[in-house]
Amino acid sequence: MELADRIEAYLTGKLYPFWYQRVTAPEGGFTTYFDRNGKPTGQTDKTIIQQTRSIFMLSHAIRNGYGAGKAEALLKPGLDWFLKTFRDHEHEGWLWIVDKDGNPVSTDKIMYGQSFVIYCMSECALATKDERARRTAEDTFTLVQKYAADTAYGGYREMFLRDWQPRPGGAYGGDRKSFDVHMHLMEAYTTLLELTGAEIHRRKLLEVIDVLWSKMFHAPTWTGISQFSLDLKPLPAIMFKTVWGSDRDNEGEPRPLNNTSYGHNIEFLWLFLHALSVLGISPDPWKEKLRALARHTVSYGVDSEFGGVFVEGPHDGPARDMQKEFWQQAESLVGLLDCYLLFNERVYWDAFRKVFDFVWSKMINHDVGEWYALLERDGTVKWDYLGHAWKNNYHTTRSMVQTLRRPREISRRGMET
Amino acid sequence: MELADRIEAYLTGKLYPFWYQRVTAPEGGFTTYFDRNGKPTGQTDKTIIQQTRSIFMLSHAIRNGYGAGKAEALLKPGLDWFLKTFRDHEHEGWLWIVDKDGNPVSTDKIMYGQSFVIYCMSECALATKDERARRTAEDTFTLVQKYAADTAYGGYREMFLRDWQPRPGGAYGGDRKSFDVHMHLMEAYTTLLELTGAEIHRRKLLEVIDVLWSKMFHAPTWTGISQFSLDLKPLPAIMFKTVWGSDRDNEGEPRPLNNTSYGHNIEFLWLFLHALSVLGISPDPWKEKLRALARHTVSYGVDSEFGGVFVEGPHDGPARDMQKEFWQQAESLVGLLDCYLLFNERVYWDAFRKVFDFVWSKMINHDVGEWYALLERDGTVKWDYLGHAWKNNYHTTRSMVQTLRRPREISRRGMET
Repeated sequence: MELADRIEAYLTGKLYPFWYQRVTAPEGGFTTYFDRNGKPTGQTDKTIIQQTRSIFMLSHAIRNGYGAGKAEALLKPGLDWFLKTFRDHEHEGWLWIVDKDGNPVSTDKIMYGQSFVIYCMSECALATKDERARRTAEDTFTLVQKYAADTAYGGYREMFLRDWQPRPGGAYGGDRKSFDVHMHLMEAYTTLLELTGAEIHRRKLLEVIDVLWSKMFHAPTWTGISQFSLDLKPLPAIMFKTVWGSDRDNEGEPRPLNNTSYGHNIEFLWLFLHALSVLGISPDPWKEKLRALARHTVSYGVDSEFGGVFVEGPHDGPARDMQKEFWQQAESLVGLLDCYLLFNERVYWDAFRKVFDFVWSKMINHDVGEWYALLERDGTVKWDYLGHAWKNNYHTTRSMVQTLRRPREISRRGMET
Repeated sequence: MELADRIEAYLTGKLYPFWYQRVTAPEGGFTTYFDRNGKPTGQTDKTIIQQTRSIFMLSHAIRNGYGAGKAEALLKPGLDWFLKTFRDHEHEGWLWIVDKDGNPVSTDKIMYGQSFVIYCMSECALATKDERARRTAEDTFTLVQKYAADTAYGGYREMFLRDWQPRPGGAYGGDRKSFDVHMHLMEAYTTLLELTGAEIHRRKLLEVIDVLWSKMFHAPTWTGISQFSLDLKPLPAIMFKTVWGSDRDNEGEPRPLNNTSYGHNIEFLWLFLHALSVLGISPDPWKEKLRALARHTVSYGVDSEFGGVFVEGPHDGPARDMQKEFWQQAESLVGLLDCYLLFNERVYWDAFRKVFDFVWSKMINHDVGEWYALLERDGTVKWDYLGHAWKNNYHTTRSMVQTLRRPREISRRGMET
């Protein structure tokens, strides 16, 4: 079977069904807490990331013809519940975590979450023409401009209390900016622009791209730097105290300043190319920078021995953290194919295959359908759950939808595979 | 008669009556077109600056006890007319110029004008508790964050088409930022913060102050630079093509890059001190910069021969344009007294007297009440009209209200005069 067909069969036969059968929480909204066998773990809190990613997953499926008559029926009540439950009627914006019945658990305004509201509501409006979703996307965009834009230094502040007062500094994140959040704003604004075509959405997309390229990359490797002061000076990355943060090393020393995430770099690359395509702008002016980023990913990020993509390492040498995270694999698949399409250099196809084969043989729990969370370098399962507060359906389903298109395009162009 | 009493008698006996008798246009809204004798000039277009400045003038009078039972009655219908006529229902924000009956003449969205909406509506809400004024101030603030904030470089874009698309560059101003507009945003946000006490208004005030001090001054003289590229690099100042711009040299060569406006510098100084006082922040950290600015004004801006303040000159030498504009005199009076209060150095009182005596003997048309527009260095009247599209009531009445308080404070502190 052709690669694209194999992915599509897995996506429609296993991955989407995994979520379609499980994503609706009995009490309303979506749930994404599942163990390695796809059984509920018993956790019940609802996070903004979990809800918005599930809305995105269903909307993206519908837009791409994978709704199977099911996604529409799941989306509507989940959207209703989200809009009713997560909206902060007192201070505007969206809560961070509620309990299973919708009572606030963490009310901070975290830009990462607000950004996913814009993203999923735009995707939902594009998929279903739902007017509330469109209005919610536009209104949340405006809120972000009002409360989070930094008119002193450019870019956005990222962590606020419920009333949009910046959180304290340090581990509370009130005095930091990040590559991650600005990249996700680029992602969200791209889909918002696709929806509205509005000049202001186009302009803010161009501005956040400008901040990313001019402040958030390490030259000349053109690999991402993780964290910054408010005035956009690079800082050694620390873990933030959010009620859930990353699962990985939530305590301990900051990371070295000379550090970059292979997954973020390659995810940025394809999201940026997608943004340019929505903007109608040629990638040519950025091609040499993108090539540097792509080469760095292939040279240091892709594991030539076991396959897959490492976690992170320095801007200028071999990887330091050689574990394999699910989301970095998911985004690399898309990004490496985009590199092949952009540069027409065989090395990117080969790198893609190294990641794909690792994902297919090690990362995916084929018995159940979803991907494990974290593997050791050699593919031994380290964290075996299939879903939690933020490890859920957005990275994996989007990756499969986006990945399977690209070999078809590559073949259409007559490129070697 | 004490100086303060003399000013107060002039303000209440001549200046306010001048405007109270004339400011209401027969067809609604406010008019400010008056010749040297206070007769209507026949011009009838209504500008956003004229309307908002008149709303400010009446509100400021009421807040300070100079309404004389008249300002309230004039304010209400003028406010109604403005809100009905100038609001752009299609694209949000406020029109630039309408004809006498309210039909749009110039629909561009100019930040200078939007800023005065925030300022006058905040002052109006503080004076009258009018709920529409409060809401309009807050909503316009939000619009400005959405459409004008520059999330790439910080600060604000200043000139837009009706739909908030930036105007073209060059003389259309779409690719420039200015000291003037950022100073007026500081002024507007200060009064908005006074009204609401909201953290977001406080934060944006601090941010615009940061942009002003970190990007818009010439060090070490700490005198203002007029214009900048979007990325806040100084540029030689040009005149912008707005339907009305400055009256002065609307054509011709750009000004030299080494150029500063004495009036803007000293106006900034007192508006900044006022902002700090509303913020509850001590001026101590800025004292040496403010001293440099103040000394530059006294050394080069104040005319030791004829009195008054010159128009402009280099950052580091004697004035080049030695004419005397009405607004520069008005703002210098307040600013020089604030310098005396801040530094307790006699030189600022003496400079104030040189400007005040010039204003009193040359600038004010005592027969009628208002000030002439522009004088030659020696006080010969060059432009004799008392009011037009933007030369009207805000600078002169505010100056008199603010100026007369300060000698009383100086005397209360037992300082020498």
